[in-house]
Amino acid sequence: MGNEVTMEKIVALCKGRGFVYPGSEIYGGLANTWDYGPLGVEFKNNIKKAWWKKFVQESKYNVGLDAAILMNPKTWEASGHIGGFSDPLIDCKNCNSRFRADKLIEDYMAEKGEEIIVDGWPNEKLEAFIADNGIKCPDCGKTDFTSIRQFNLMFKTFQGVTEDTKSQIYLRPETAQGIFVNFKNVARTSRKKIPFGIAQIGKSFRNEITPGNFIFRIREFEQMELEFFCKPGTDLEWFDYWKNYCRNFLDSLGMNMEKLRSRDHSQEELSHYSNATTDLEYLFPFGWGELWGIADRTDFDLRQHSKFSGEEMTFTEGEGKDKETYIPYCIEPSLGADRVALAFLIDAYDEETVTDAKGKEDTRVIMHFHPALAPFKAAVLPLAKKLADQAEPVYDELSKYFNVDYDVTGSIGKRYRREDEIGTPYCICVDFQTEEDGCVTIRDRDTMEQTRLPIDQVRSYIEERLEF
Amino acid sequence: MGNEVTMEKIVALCKGRGFVYPGSEIYGGLANTWDYGPLGVEFKNNIKKAWWKKFVQESKYNVGLDAAILMNPKTWEASGHIGGFSDPLIDCKNCNSRFRADKLIEDYMAEKGEEIIVDGWPNEKLEAFIADNGIKCPDCGKTDFTSIRQFNLMFKTFQGVTEDTKSQIYLRPETAQGIFVNFKNVARTSRKKIPFGIAQIGKSFRNEITPGNFIFRIREFEQMELEFFCKPGTDLEWFDYWKNYCRNFLDSLGMNMEKLRSRDHSQEELSHYSNATTDLEYLFPFGWGELWGIADRTDFDLRQHSKFSGEEMTFTEGEGKDKETYIPYCIEPSLGADRVALAFLIDAYDEETVTDAKGKEDTRVIMHFHPALAPFKAAVLPLAKKLADQAEPVYDELSKYFNVDYDVTGSIGKRYRREDEIGTPYCICVDFQTEEDGCVTIRDRDTMEQTRLPIDQVRSYIEERLEF
Repeated sequence: MGNEVTMEKIVALCKGRGFVYPGSEIYGGLANTWDYGPLGVEFKNNIKKAWWKKFVQESKYNVGLDAAILMNPKTWEASGHIGGFSDPLIDCKNCNSRFRADKLIEDYMAEKGEEIIVDGWPNEKLEAFIADNGIKCPDCGKTDFTSIRQFNLMFKTFQGVTEDTKSQIYLRPETAQGIFVNFKNVARTSRKKIPFGIAQIGKSFRNEITPGNFIFRIREFEQMELEFFCKPGTDLEWFDYWKNYCRNFLDSLGMNMEKLRSRDHSQEELSHYSNATTDLEYLFPFGWGELWGIADRTDFDLRQHSKFSGEEMTFTEGEGKDKETYIPYCIEPSLGADRVALAFLIDAYDEETVTDAKGKEDTRVIMHFHPALAPFKAAVLPLAKKLADQAEPVYDELSKYFNVDYDVTGSIGKRYRREDEIGTPYCICVDFQTEEDGCVTIRDRDTMEQTRLPIDQVRSYIEERLEF
Repeated sequence: MGNEVTMEKIVALCKGRGFVYPGSEIYGGLANTWDYGPLGVEFKNNIKKAWWKKFVQESKYNVGLDAAILMNPKTWEASGHIGGFSDPLIDCKNCNSRFRADKLIEDYMAEKGEEIIVDGWPNEKLEAFIADNGIKCPDCGKTDFTSIRQFNLMFKTFQGVTEDTKSQIYLRPETAQGIFVNFKNVARTSRKKIPFGIAQIGKSFRNEITPGNFIFRIREFEQMELEFFCKPGTDLEWFDYWKNYCRNFLDSLGMNMEKLRSRDHSQEELSHYSNATTDLEYLFPFGWGELWGIADRTDFDLRQHSKFSGEEMTFTEGEGKDKETYIPYCIEPSLGADRVALAFLIDAYDEETVTDAKGKEDTRVIMHFHPALAPFKAAVLPLAKKLADQAEPVYDELSKYFNVDYDVTGSIGKRYRREDEIGTPYCICVDFQTEEDGCVTIRDRDTMEQTRLPIDQVRSYIEERLEF
């Protein structure tokens, strides 16, 4: 392993190579929005496709859904988001800077090298902790804070011509509720029986007070959520099943499992409706951060929607005297696509000192992406410009099946380095022998080993290595 | 061909089989939002994947992008959306019903069997036409309308804690501007030279006064847009290139080309900055409707963003005395994913009268989707429940590569019908001979012909037929 990975290096590589740019950059940005560039969109799409493959396509239990971002506001009354989806806000009286009281405490303790979890603390306890510890304003250094007030995190907008309460709607703060309100529609039309799950990928929006750490916490983010419905009493078994399934997913895509830990929520931290919750946390350069939240939500959501909509959210199984009707319990593994993209970016980053043929030392930056996640699966590199006639058909043929780069500029060594830095697993070099022997040289990104292969075997050589 | 396709049949099939449900249905819906069910999400994803394959992966000119929905509001000043992106609104003074004046006229003329295009008419002309023709309120029949006022179609929201003008932002009404503001970032990091294009798929939002026709016009919709940058003077050539490319795309996915027409915008209808615009229109059950707008937008957008941001949006080519710097012209083929999904649904629909072995007549509803678009590529159907041991491994193996259904309930004939109705192109029947000969029977959805094939050839048999 090479030198240490830092957020600065990741952000710079992302911007420089077209993974992620600051949003609306020419206008000075828009606080903490990010745009995925040509490589970033391929990378993130590959993550989403991998998740869909394992959680929908290959799972005999689950089906997909794509519900609208704009929902009837009653949804958010039932889910509790209108009443309770808020952050504890505190202002510095001296400089008017605004903070999340919970983050203020966590950051203060982290600086002392201690970890604290304040989720679930009432406002009074947060205020007292800040006062008792003399926590200073990170901006001006004073210790004069307002009391805490709750700030609802839902973005609101108006549908139709008039801007009154009647037409007020929200951008969904999570994709999960789109699944719950469709529980009966999906059960009916897919003819699925309990246990079964509904999976969804889509944008959610949270008006965060203090977004940050690049694409770790953003206001507009993409979720990959599964709501898995099972019989009450079997829920803790399924909770374990999906916890393992999620871990295996990350493992199969090459994540370093030493940088992943499971953290079970304590009784105090647990939501009132949850039987059990575990966070899979990844060791980011700024510390451990939540990657995947897996929660046993019991029948809370379906019960709430039953109550607010008047629709029975039940499932009936068995016949005759074995017939049984119940509200299913629900296991929710919830993953942020942007956040796991960041984890995979950090995990893949490496710097290597290599010595060239002349004995000169050079630093090689490599992104060790799993081939399934790499933006380009291969790069076609003609050794000289005049080999274009042989190289272009190779590119054209492979492009039908996966995303391929084509680069003819600069020395072959320089081009290898460029591909290493964006994580292209295989470089296909078309050389002066190719016309004669119908072969190309395939260079492996990680080992730098070269293999000579007939052109018509290249596609299957690469496709086999994309499997996971 | 069978009986006529109507919107009622499509909507009913979509709801009944899990393609599209009304949004937030248990709460009485939210005006004109729609949720894609288990089959709909696969179908729409297949359309998006097909577009991405042809417009990004296989195109040597284009790269992808995924910009944020929330953008710096200056973007919308520059693009003209804050000033001019509005609909002409008119109210009935008698019953207070609200209409789009242009639609009122178009619907009035359509009922008389005449087609009229009022795009680009000033308000005075619209008002005069309504008065002169004595157009009645469709709701109450009176002819007493207010004058027209313009209503901006952008949804607005607030970022941060305070709700004032400074924190007011908008949900993007089109994906295009996310591309324009990133023109320099993409050109720099992808090292593309003119001509090149940037493609994007994403949600956009328009606060339409009168959405309607199922998923044809909705407030929250998904766009697939390409902005193709070329040298001024070559723009009309590229305009033709992309017009043909778009037509070929629809053709290659099996769309009935007799239901597609090109309509060039008249001088009056053309936006002030456009050199040429053509709409590809599809014959929906409710009449011809715009499917794909292809516009030569000249250098309007890049020039506006240069002006508003102070960033030079130029491209330099050549060297020495051949060096030339210019603002590229832009060709924009813009397609609505929901709208083209509707067109493919309608196009695929068919009813057939078939006679069974006993001579009984039956109606077979078939969705003739191109295999690349079909939600399930195949269905594994064990002839009897006890054949599960042979059928499940077939399902497990194929599921690694594409989306497969598994159905064991009901007679084989009934299961074939169910698969026909959701457009599954190949049914794989595992029967009592399978254990002996290692073969399965593949039934073709359209011809109903059956082919016996060794199990290990099934994957490639189907994959070959997914190509387009």
